[in-house]
Amino acid sequence: MNDVAVIPPISQRPRKSRGKFITFEGGEGSGKSTQVKLLAARLKEAGISSSITREPGGSPSAEDIRKLLVSGSVARWDPLTELLLHNAARREHLRNLIQPVLHRGVWLISDRFVDSTMAYQGYGHGLGRPLVEQLHKIIADGFMPDLTLILDIPTEAGIARAKARSEELKAKNPDMKTEDRYERMAGPFHRRLRRGFLDIAKHDPGRCRVIDAGGTIDEVAGKVWAAVSEKFALPELAAKSV
Amino acid sequence: MNDVAVIPPISQRPRKSRGKFITFEGGEGSGKSTQVKLLAARLKEAGISSSITREPGGSPSAEDIRKLLVSGSVARWDPLTELLLHNAARREHLRNLIQPVLHRGVWLISDRFVDSTMAYQGYGHGLGRPLVEQLHKIIADGFMPDLTLILDIPTEAGIARAKARSEELKAKNPDMKTEDRYERMAGPFHRRLRRGFLDIAKHDPGRCRVIDAGGTIDEVAGKVWAAVSEKFALPELAAKSV
Repeated sequence: MNDVAVIPPISQRPRKSRGKFITFEGGEGSGKSTQVKLLAARLKEAGISSSITREPGGSPSAEDIRKLLVSGSVARWDPLTELLLHNAARREHLRNLIQPVLHRGVWLISDRFVDSTMAYQGYGHGLGRPLVEQLHKIIADGFMPDLTLILDIPTEAGIARAKARSEELKAKNPDMKTEDRYERMAGPFHRRLRRGFLDIAKHDPGRCRVIDAGGTIDEVAGKVWAAVSEKFALPELAAKSV
Repeated sequence: MNDVAVIPPISQRPRKSRGKFITFEGGEGSGKSTQVKLLAARLKEAGISSSITREPGGSPSAEDIRKLLVSGSVARWDPLTELLLHNAARREHLRNLIQPVLHRGVWLISDRFVDSTMAYQGYGHGLGRPLVEQLHKIIADGFMPDLTLILDIPTEAGIARAKARSEELKAKNPDMKTEDRYERMAGPFHRRLRRGFLDIAKHDPGRCRVIDAGGTIDEVAGKVWAAVSEKFALPELAAKSV
């Protein structure tokens, strides 16, 4: 009987044969979803096939868990329950989507991953770094993104952007179930989040790049591409595959 | 920032002022739900007010998680995901029902608790004792039942009973969503379960009593009452409260 169920160790496959895993992180309204799509398009231009995904969710069973997390009352869950639900969803996402896609050699870009759990539950809800790390070790056996882009924006500006987006969606489709449970959390929570993301970047400078997300969409996309192409020496790769 | 979010330490309250927590455990078809009700009735006769509950679920938010666990395809979840979901549901149950009820001085009888997670995920799915213990420590800070009654029945007899019950329910209400995901797991799984429950009893003989559940309902209820009244010296208690 095993002590811990271990995910098939993707890290033992030759790194060149598997796709890269890039994650976008940041608070509400930092522009992650837009930048995920723009990066996928830019990778395509460079001859690299990629796929996009998101958390919580990303695979059918993980999306079933997402539904419990993103709607309903702000105080719906105890913070520790929430940490377990995010890890449960991530385990499904890893097994059923992330690892199979990377094994096929396709690059994968995710809108949120473990750093969001660290920022929201570890810093925002005060559960602390060790507990979040302990759970990630259990579900992922050390698996981490190749590159994490943290989109940083002043808290108030981000919340204003996120609210405008939610209201626009509600105006278009008044019956839609809104996924704004985290947005509705109070200001101090969002300030802890921002500090959390910046602290995460300090802890892991080899993997994380903090990107100023206060500019226009094109300006931010330019900074994202600079970080990605530098990290993976992309001009060379692109030249090979075209 | 805390390392671990700790449940208000019920164990620090004077033991006499809080209700006792009694759990029933055992495989499918061992007769737990029936015995839970009979024990509550017998406690009432003895002048002790009790409440009954069940896992997974038992409180509204925990029941939302239960829905993910008890229906759908047998292979719906990775075993580790399932372990996290059970712990998430238990955390909600502990915070919102178990601890408040016990603090009011009411006894509580639960149809399943942490030993089911140990038996099903730890033994049945092979995740092992240490991991199940590690997660229980995180969510419950050492909180355990005062008494656990393990209803033991040969595997085949239990499965036959559980199937008969499911078919009866389906005949009465063909549109009902069946909660038989665990029942449908294969025979060897259920044999590991039974061994698991017996092993749990060996590990914690002060808390657990194994009860032969092969007899009639009344015979089993008699054995349950013998165990409960002996454990809590009930004739004395009953005399006081009548």
